[in-house]
Amino acid sequence: MNQMVWGCGWCGVNLRIQKIYAKLAQENLDGLILSSPANISYLTNFTSRDSYFLISKKPNIYFTDSRYAEEAKKGLKGLALITKINGSVFKIIADTCVDLGLKRIGFEERYLAFAEHKKIKEELNNRGDLIPTYGLVEELREIKTAEELEKIKKAIQITIKAFKFIKNFIVPGKKEIEVAAELERFIRYCGAESSAFDIIIASGTNSSFPHHLTSQRKIKNNEPILIDMGVDYMGYKSDLTRVFFLGKINPAVKRIYDIVCKAQDRAIKEIKPAVQINKIDAAARQYITQKGYGGFFGHNTGHGIGLEVHEEPRISGKVEGILKPDMVFTVEPAIYLPNKFGIRLEDIILVTKKGSNVLSGALDK
Amino acid sequence: MNQMVWGCGWCGVNLRIQKIYAKLAQENLDGLILSSPANISYLTNFTSRDSYFLISKKPNIYFTDSRYAEEAKKGLKGLALITKINGSVFKIIADTCVDLGLKRIGFEERYLAFAEHKKIKEELNNRGDLIPTYGLVEELREIKTAEELEKIKKAIQITIKAFKFIKNFIVPGKKEIEVAAELERFIRYCGAESSAFDIIIASGTNSSFPHHLTSQRKIKNNEPILIDMGVDYMGYKSDLTRVFFLGKINPAVKRIYDIVCKAQDRAIKEIKPAVQINKIDAAARQYITQKGYGGFFGHNTGHGIGLEVHEEPRISGKVEGILKPDMVFTVEPAIYLPNKFGIRLEDIILVTKKGSNVLSGALDK
Repeated sequence: MNQMVWGCGWCGVNLRIQKIYAKLAQENLDGLILSSPANISYLTNFTSRDSYFLISKKPNIYFTDSRYAEEAKKGLKGLALITKINGSVFKIIADTCVDLGLKRIGFEERYLAFAEHKKIKEELNNRGDLIPTYGLVEELREIKTAEELEKIKKAIQITIKAFKFIKNFIVPGKKEIEVAAELERFIRYCGAESSAFDIIIASGTNSSFPHHLTSQRKIKNNEPILIDMGVDYMGYKSDLTRVFFLGKINPAVKRIYDIVCKAQDRAIKEIKPAVQINKIDAAARQYITQKGYGGFFGHNTGHGIGLEVHEEPRISGKVEGILKPDMVFTVEPAIYLPNKFGIRLEDIILVTKKGSNVLSGALDK
Repeated sequence: MNQMVWGCGWCGVNLRIQKIYAKLAQENLDGLILSSPANISYLTNFTSRDSYFLISKKPNIYFTDSRYAEEAKKGLKGLALITKINGSVFKIIADTCVDLGLKRIGFEERYLAFAEHKKIKEELNNRGDLIPTYGLVEELREIKTAEELEKIKKAIQITIKAFKFIKNFIVPGKKEIEVAAELERFIRYCGAESSAFDIIIASGTNSSFPHHLTSQRKIKNNEPILIDMGVDYMGYKSDLTRVFFLGKINPAVKRIYDIVCKAQDRAIKEIKPAVQINKIDAAARQYITQKGYGGFFGHNTGHGIGLEVHEEPRISGKVEGILKPDMVFTVEPAIYLPNKFGIRLEDIILVTKKGSNVLSGALDK
């Protein structure tokens, strides 16, 4: 095996990894190969890119290649690091599992490609079994720590500042892409590392596409401009949507806006610990349906947010399970009228001990 | 099955899809489930997001959800579209394969997660076999058409403009992230849709990390500033790297710079049709090794570029196969001296009928 090993091997176990140990014990697993960058970042406190992470009661080992080796050496406090020099990373992972005596080895079935699984399995060559796992780390990530909440709040704060800034910039004749350009610049001066996803600037009929690709279209007077944006602050994301108007608001647009606004209120009012998650979706959806627009609200009412823009819990009618304190998610009902316009309003809500807190409440609607 | 079907079903077959048919026939496959966004975009001429695409001699069918339905209806000329309304997209894909009478169904082993494969297999329930495929579409994408080349050239042109613009902006005291902020703004005003990847601004010792995360560090006088950036123009990417200097160039840095520059020249000089790809890597690597820095150049010499920033052909010592006209790839040798500095120079080269053309040649070194 052609490799280098750094680090003290075993001393950096933290609370998060200990919780995974308990889950591994429940599933009768000797170890877990992680391949989701967000899950690896969560367990290592290091921004993971192009890596795999093997955890077990033996040393926890981070696998990467030369592009990230120096940063990983500095950032991975107390974790062993194997940098692939030559040959297949899958062979190195498999051989490491064997060296550690791991027999039942879990992997993340959502984040390992069929080909990667095949290669590790071939390299294991019956010296260990690969067992699919689902959501072991994601379940932990649903409940945010105080430190995580601070980062999410800071990401939201920067986003709100950006919305306030851009309001004055938008005038008829500006292109959607120019609005995005100014926002991309502004957020980095405010301390964000990047935008959390491609900023959506959807003007006029473009707002009827839920995930419009920001275009060269010029913004006109008397039409809605939907802005959906978020930032990355120290790995944590925000995601907020507002609809602006230049000139007059068409009464038909205003009517839809008010329906979406009320639907959002109704959903938010339901939020408190022990409430079924699907009730949040139902509260918004039933109101929109009752007003006659149920067929124009196709997506879920919201999604968890943290290290990823979209994570657990999904605020969907299909999700069983209940809300718990320190969950953080968006509430974003919408109505999209094809070839006309669309309205979506999106806020980020924290479940508190007794109720909820709209973390983006400082942003006008 | 709860779904809606639009489109004329079968009339939009194009040359690219016909080439895939020939490959499917060779592999004795009745159809192919595509899950790589770039491959789907390539075959449909539509920017694909969160979709699957099933091709067979029966109707070619695009599967997406309500968020993209309206855009897909407009953009997918002549292709059938199935929008998931309720239930599992994997069930819909499996049932569609059965309805079409497909028995041996290929899938992209690099781009289908283990869990997705499992679900489609379960839903097929022995009514068809899933056969792994590797690189069927990627192989076509290696050879660029005139239309693709135009888009790549435009992406390069915007990037060169951005490099020239930023040269005047950088002064001691500016933060790395502020340089990135200005570039993110500038490229969008020049017609780019976005940056192709997180712009790397690596100043001083940060330049010794091959994939540095642009930080809050303030740029100082008399140190190298490595900038690695690319843009997305109509789906096509650029990727160029230069190293700037403020104040004096330290002679030790200049020496390394000259070695990298010459290594790049040597690699580029080798480029012409029918040359073995690993010879390009060897030309750069041997020169750097001969100068005593072989251990400080860990990554490949380059990578293909097009709909993805990194695609085939990989310019690696391990790649067998030869160069062909209309391949487009980067040549980016480097030397990274840990805790000191790093130098990387990256250009984009087109293989012509008789030799090569440095598409980014207008950018000073």
